[in-house]
Amino acid sequence: MSSPASPLRLFVPGDLATGLIIELSSDQAHYVAHVMRRSVGDAVLLFNGRDGEWQGDLAEIQKKAASVFITAQTQGQPIERNLTLLFAPIKRMATDMIVQKASELGVTVIQPVITARTNSDRVRVGRLTAIATEASEQCERLTLPVIFEPVSIQDKLESWPEDRVLFVMDETGTGAPIADVLSESAAQDAAAAAFVIGPEGGFSETELDLMRSLPFSRFMSLGPRILRADTAALAALTCWQALCGDWRHANKG
Amino acid sequence: MSSPASPLRLFVPGDLATGLIIELSSDQAHYVAHVMRRSVGDAVLLFNGRDGEWQGDLAEIQKKAASVFITAQTQGQPIERNLTLLFAPIKRMATDMIVQKASELGVTVIQPVITARTNSDRVRVGRLTAIATEASEQCERLTLPVIFEPVSIQDKLESWPEDRVLFVMDETGTGAPIADVLSESAAQDAAAAAFVIGPEGGFSETELDLMRSLPFSRFMSLGPRILRADTAALAALTCWQALCGDWRHANKG
Repeated sequence: MSSPASPLRLFVPGDLATGLIIELSSDQAHYVAHVMRRSVGDAVLLFNGRDGEWQGDLAEIQKKAASVFITAQTQGQPIERNLTLLFAPIKRMATDMIVQKASELGVTVIQPVITARTNSDRVRVGRLTAIATEASEQCERLTLPVIFEPVSIQDKLESWPEDRVLFVMDETGTGAPIADVLSESAAQDAAAAAFVIGPEGGFSETELDLMRSLPFSRFMSLGPRILRADTAALAALTCWQALCGDWRHANKG
Repeated sequence: MSSPASPLRLFVPGDLATGLIIELSSDQAHYVAHVMRRSVGDAVLLFNGRDGEWQGDLAEIQKKAASVFITAQTQGQPIERNLTLLFAPIKRMATDMIVQKASELGVTVIQPVITARTNSDRVRVGRLTAIATEASEQCERLTLPVIFEPVSIQDKLESWPEDRVLFVMDETGTGAPIADVLSESAAQDAAAAAFVIGPEGGFSETELDLMRSLPFSRFMSLGPRILRADTAALAALTCWQALCGDWRHANKG
């Protein structure tokens, strides 16, 4: 909900420091000049996921190119806790929404997982990364989530680090209320958290049995209504940020 | 995440009781016969928002008509707490998503409000009611949210009942963390709750000053990132269900 007059925020891959001139991508140049109608001299904010946030001025705008002259650092790079989302890809629009909202909700790693009942379009990691980048730019985040190619859920669970808790969103109703599970987790103040969300149709019995047998899994419930997979993903991440994450503290504003 | 083989759930406006024959709408008949390819004798679940959930069999299917013979009640009507969402309409897709997710998240009243910075397509209450109905059917809810025609936020606040708390999602950063505000609210176990979410661009200063001056308003923050209006709406409702609502208890499953 940023105001229309605020400086554009853009992710750039290269290093950032005062005095550097940064070339934007051709897509960014188009966005800056033609979509947002900014001119030479207008302020822009840049971040690269490592060096914090920097202010600069649009130094040059051509048809398919633009550059920014960096004038000052506006924020240091914050330390983000590792927040991983494993989700079974669903219909394209719902998958896009999961990636957009997960980026706003501070997820650091997005891992699509193939489950027995996964029945979806092919996952296009490049497309999802573009969605995550735009969401991070707009929500004033200073990092991008990393999005991996899909893997089978069995492979992912077999290589899971034993000391990392995996919260399982369980629509069969055997889990404890999410606020109870996460309040307990907040007290332990773990450095990392991960959630796994099944596809439409849920996890198979074999998958549920496997996850129940793992020492690092915690089953949790999201109430009496049967949520869509995308709603469940956003709800779980929201509760984590509110109870264990960076929403616990007073706002930076 | 219900399985594909489970009985269809449909909202019908009329009364429900064992032995009645219920005519479905022509849209429902099309959905049952042609989209979901069900046949005479297949089980269907019906609810009307008043009489709980009832099971029946498809008794007749024609091109644009179908009927259900009710055989038994499967659930009584639960008592729902009043959960109101006031939101400034945004782009159509985001507005649709707010209504769909709010229905899954148990909202009972959806009130679009016009604010100083509201800049949106016209709100079509009939279309939004259809979205809410489908979401309620699919998430196994036994009621529909009521969706009202838009009103100005000033008018809505002037007629607000003084004993009803209004949670204001404040993106300017002056609010307390949402988990703190809602934990306090959970202890009071209020019969009703309401949230108000601003448009893209946020509330105007005049609107914020008005809301700050009201004895029933509670400002809350959703962390350091600037959430889209639709993300903020879903996040607020999720936290309320997790901390104050029906997600606090063990699941029905």
